[in-house]
Amino acid sequence: MEHITSTRNPQLQEMRRLHKKTHREASGFCLVEGIQPCLRAIENGLHVEFLIYAPELLKSPLALMQIADLQRRQIKVLTASKEAFATISERDNPVGLALVAKANPLDLGKITVGKLSILTALFNVKNPGNLGTIVRTTDSIGGSGVILVGQTADPYDPTCIKASMGTVFSVPLARSTEEDFLAWCHDRQVALITTSAQATMDLAKAKFAYPCAVLMGSEGPGLPRDILTGGHWAVRIPMYGQANSLNLAVATGIILYEVRRQLNQN
Amino acid sequence: MEHITSTRNPQLQEMRRLHKKTHREASGFCLVEGIQPCLRAIENGLHVEFLIYAPELLKSPLALMQIADLQRRQIKVLTASKEAFATISERDNPVGLALVAKANPLDLGKITVGKLSILTALFNVKNPGNLGTIVRTTDSIGGSGVILVGQTADPYDPTCIKASMGTVFSVPLARSTEEDFLAWCHDRQVALITTSAQATMDLAKAKFAYPCAVLMGSEGPGLPRDILTGGHWAVRIPMYGQANSLNLAVATGIILYEVRRQLNQN
Repeated sequence: MEHITSTRNPQLQEMRRLHKKTHREASGFCLVEGIQPCLRAIENGLHVEFLIYAPELLKSPLALMQIADLQRRQIKVLTASKEAFATISERDNPVGLALVAKANPLDLGKITVGKLSILTALFNVKNPGNLGTIVRTTDSIGGSGVILVGQTADPYDPTCIKASMGTVFSVPLARSTEEDFLAWCHDRQVALITTSAQATMDLAKAKFAYPCAVLMGSEGPGLPRDILTGGHWAVRIPMYGQANSLNLAVATGIILYEVRRQLNQN
Repeated sequence: MEHITSTRNPQLQEMRRLHKKTHREASGFCLVEGIQPCLRAIENGLHVEFLIYAPELLKSPLALMQIADLQRRQIKVLTASKEAFATISERDNPVGLALVAKANPLDLGKITVGKLSILTALFNVKNPGNLGTIVRTTDSIGGSGVILVGQTADPYDPTCIKASMGTVFSVPLARSTEEDFLAWCHDRQVALITTSAQATMDLAKAKFAYPCAVLMGSEGPGLPRDILTGGHWAVRIPMYGQANSLNLAVATGIILYEVRRQLNQN
């Protein structure tokens, strides 16, 4: 097995290039770092191009077992010195595990909607940390997917992958324009849940029904008026304090859990 | 009014020093940046030592009105060039407003508990962004305060102030040891709500009652066992996906809203 000590090694260079969105989009590959994200990518059957680990850093028996398994499957595994590994990491204390995998959002038509589906849709959400946290919450409520509407951030941004704990590889993701998304919801009878400070219906008093999608707007401006008025349920999270809004990922979590709670009672 | 163009101006130097926790603790002052946080600090009656704004950047009429009002009250106001202001800012696009104010957590005894109080308590929460987001959510449910137990981060870290949208200046905050906090809860009959993946009671099925405190553990290890077993309600957020945990600020938001929802029905 090749042991990398030079920071000019071509695989390390490729990993560093994958920090850039333009290179991710051009290549169709992404950089996955950390134990949970890497294991989740492998367990969910992603095509792994190569994996690099730093034996001085990586001590997780579970991770080392998975690496041995990848080698048996003829997948390229390299080791690197701690110093060489640090050049590809965005973390203060890297755990010494990273891989390059093929990952692309699905076409919207590939997202399966069942009778019991709850989906999340994000309109122009720009912050990759928020996006990853929302994918993680969607996973936790057993959501059927996350639709990235308009100019929403890249789900394979390393910050998003980390915030998602690797659930970007298990939750179905699709990119869509606003028009295609609204037509898709109409065709599949997915009812839209929107939220704004002006809505009059209290979140806890709405009567949600399957299948539905929680549609959240971008940080700051929120959802455009035409979408707000077109939703089946326009709800308001009750606010009792001085601030007039919640963090986007927190607001999404509160709504997704309330939808889940109500529908569990049916 | 003094117009600052030199980055070696003593007020700018003081602001830059306040990025450091050690200097905040030694001086009892903190740096507040941005329109919402500064307005909230002023509206909540904090002692403002001085304020600096960059006329080239700051266009908010509300902020300019508040500045004029501070000047009438003989509070020191300085202007700075855009370039000089940038040296104190942690933002990519500074809005050109910052101030230095006196801010310290209260003694625990100063936190008022009423018959309808819901509190948040954080045990060893290290990330200032999470802390600020949780204070913001506590404000939004009308919470009576946030208790910073053990080694919890500094609420006056600029990252925390920003994430809180300035609600660190409106929500009562207190620091406490674990022992003092538990004794205080006992004395004031504040019932503790704890959460863990091992708890058997579903969050939605607990029957919460006033007054209560939602106690959250640190990112990663969560709450120590002795605290978990000592809580009145040990609840589990139901998880249906591959990830076995939620982001801390999202989990706190989900629990605080569920407590608020249940108690609103009483």
